[in-house]
Amino acid sequence: MSFEENVRRVVPYVPGEQPNRPDMIKLNTNECPYPPSPRVEEALRGLNADSLRLYPDPAAAELTNALAARYQVKPEQVFVGVGSDDVLAMSFLTFFNSEKPILFPDITYSFYDVWADLFRIPFQTCPLREDFTICAEDYLKPNGGIVIPNPNAPTGLFEPVANLERIIAGNPDSVVIIDEAYVDFGAKSVLPLVERYENLLVVQTFSKSRAMAGARIGFAIGQPKLISYLNDAKFSFNSYTMSQTSLAVGRAAVEDEAYFQKITGKIIKTRERAKKELKALGFTFPDSKANFIFATHERLSAKEIFDSLRERDIYVRYFNKPRIDNYLRITVGTDEQMEALFAALREIIAGQGTAL
Amino acid sequence: MSFEENVRRVVPYVPGEQPNRPDMIKLNTNECPYPPSPRVEEALRGLNADSLRLYPDPAAAELTNALAARYQVKPEQVFVGVGSDDVLAMSFLTFFNSEKPILFPDITYSFYDVWADLFRIPFQTCPLREDFTICAEDYLKPNGGIVIPNPNAPTGLFEPVANLERIIAGNPDSVVIIDEAYVDFGAKSVLPLVERYENLLVVQTFSKSRAMAGARIGFAIGQPKLISYLNDAKFSFNSYTMSQTSLAVGRAAVEDEAYFQKITGKIIKTRERAKKELKALGFTFPDSKANFIFATHERLSAKEIFDSLRERDIYVRYFNKPRIDNYLRITVGTDEQMEALFAALREIIAGQGTAL
Repeated sequence: MSFEENVRRVVPYVPGEQPNRPDMIKLNTNECPYPPSPRVEEALRGLNADSLRLYPDPAAAELTNALAARYQVKPEQVFVGVGSDDVLAMSFLTFFNSEKPILFPDITYSFYDVWADLFRIPFQTCPLREDFTICAEDYLKPNGGIVIPNPNAPTGLFEPVANLERIIAGNPDSVVIIDEAYVDFGAKSVLPLVERYENLLVVQTFSKSRAMAGARIGFAIGQPKLISYLNDAKFSFNSYTMSQTSLAVGRAAVEDEAYFQKITGKIIKTRERAKKELKALGFTFPDSKANFIFATHERLSAKEIFDSLRERDIYVRYFNKPRIDNYLRITVGTDEQMEALFAALREIIAGQGTAL
Repeated sequence: MSFEENVRRVVPYVPGEQPNRPDMIKLNTNECPYPPSPRVEEALRGLNADSLRLYPDPAAAELTNALAARYQVKPEQVFVGVGSDDVLAMSFLTFFNSEKPILFPDITYSFYDVWADLFRIPFQTCPLREDFTICAEDYLKPNGGIVIPNPNAPTGLFEPVANLERIIAGNPDSVVIIDEAYVDFGAKSVLPLVERYENLLVVQTFSKSRAMAGARIGFAIGQPKLISYLNDAKFSFNSYTMSQTSLAVGRAAVEDEAYFQKITGKIIKTRERAKKELKALGFTFPDSKANFIFATHERLSAKEIFDSLRERDIYVRYFNKPRIDNYLRITVGTDEQMEALFAALREIIAGQGTAL
């Protein structure tokens, strides 16, 4: 016997590659290709190192107030955390406390089952249809909670709000979490439903559309009761999760709506152009509303393309998982990055054509 | 029935007051009265806002390498988290996974029982002796893990390393966590024991001696095996907990050893002077080795003094708990702040003397 018998064993998760070479093209972790708002730079310059000696405001009011103003809700409807992973994990812990299994799609964000295992929450996955759309009926059976990303990852598919509303309205006894990490690239948010459904929690992040993955900021919006349960759990766990610098830069980013519209608009345009190019190159893909495209090629295997791109210092994401192991998840970068990607793909496809 | 039946109910923790008025004297949350190292200011100025668009290094190498160099251990012996609360909570989750109760003192840091409840870890407290010292024998019975702060909070008492080594050596089947949040103010660390005991995890923080409570940085040092279990759990939960700004300012602080020695030395001097003053005013207290003094008055009740100080805009900490409800925890501030405190105490004590 040793202390190791009492160690909680988890499947070690290996985070996606974070290579960092000057000339590489990094389209593998859905980061924003543009810098954060210039106001974030100003906020950084304005930070007072002296004030770091004090604990941050545990209520994170500076940031929750800015978010409340932006999303036209009350500050007590906003919860913030260290990235949406922190917000989601805390939400699982707080709301999924039933003997009945929680439900989520079989093809989805890879952390849901890990958190469920970690917190010993039973779960059951609901298979997406062949075209990767969600079947609302699957979520109308007894359950201990529901979590659905919209747009879904890694498919990029957007589920119409009406379809999600059926699920939310049909589950008054469960908290339904809609994970909108990728909602700002042309999809529609379920936020207007928060007023009507007290079991709805909407989670978003600063890591994609606000170009601040490095600042670790996520948030949830729901009715005040839901948010107060989350805060109770959070305060009991760690009162001070948000550093003073994150609060300051987060607020600065939220307050620059014009910049937010500008960069998300640019990414949407690049994505739509990329769809045409990829189609011309023989790819098919669900019609993404996210900042990535989930594509499969008519002839070449995804793994083959992935490896060939990597040799050229272009990184995309490949998941060796059932049903999606012939797809590549390609983050939408700048126009220049995408041109370099298309050029490389043309080469790879042509080279393969002659070799066969 | 409603979704609320599945909500995890916790005792809502109310964080200590964080009032913020220009003339107030804040001696209630054990923050450092001096600013962080000037290198932290430089690091803030040197931060590149553009780089915030990228995810931080999940391994936090910049910071773990700096800590490894400072504490003369290997980088794979260092785990970092969002304040020591995050590090401790993750350690509870990872290592205290037994049916047997974990053990900690009855008078101690107030989060231990909360985390145990949150993770459904059975626990049992071991009463401190009347003089607030730890009885090592209490920790030599079957248990699922042990956590002891040294110096203890809120007593400030330092337990000799040999006494803790008895506990560590006597529990090869349990992970023993020594929480050294306050070790840098003249106490002795158990870090040299890490080499010999694979069940020892030492946790420290940047919030006190490094004057960076606002940056949210804590760390643990242990043998590589223990740290790898912690990392497995952390990566499964949230791969990217440390923001880029925290990594940069944390590293800058660790690298300025001279400044660290200077401010901890100043606090120690002020504390020793404060002990004499408090004694002269009729207070008694355990002989603190922390950056606070846990004092009780021969005549006036702690609550009375607490309220009177508060009226004068001087904040100290009062715990309405068994055995310690006649004590005040007074953070050691600057000499000027302490002079103001003594003047106020003189007034309060004299006023009370004549009124009686």
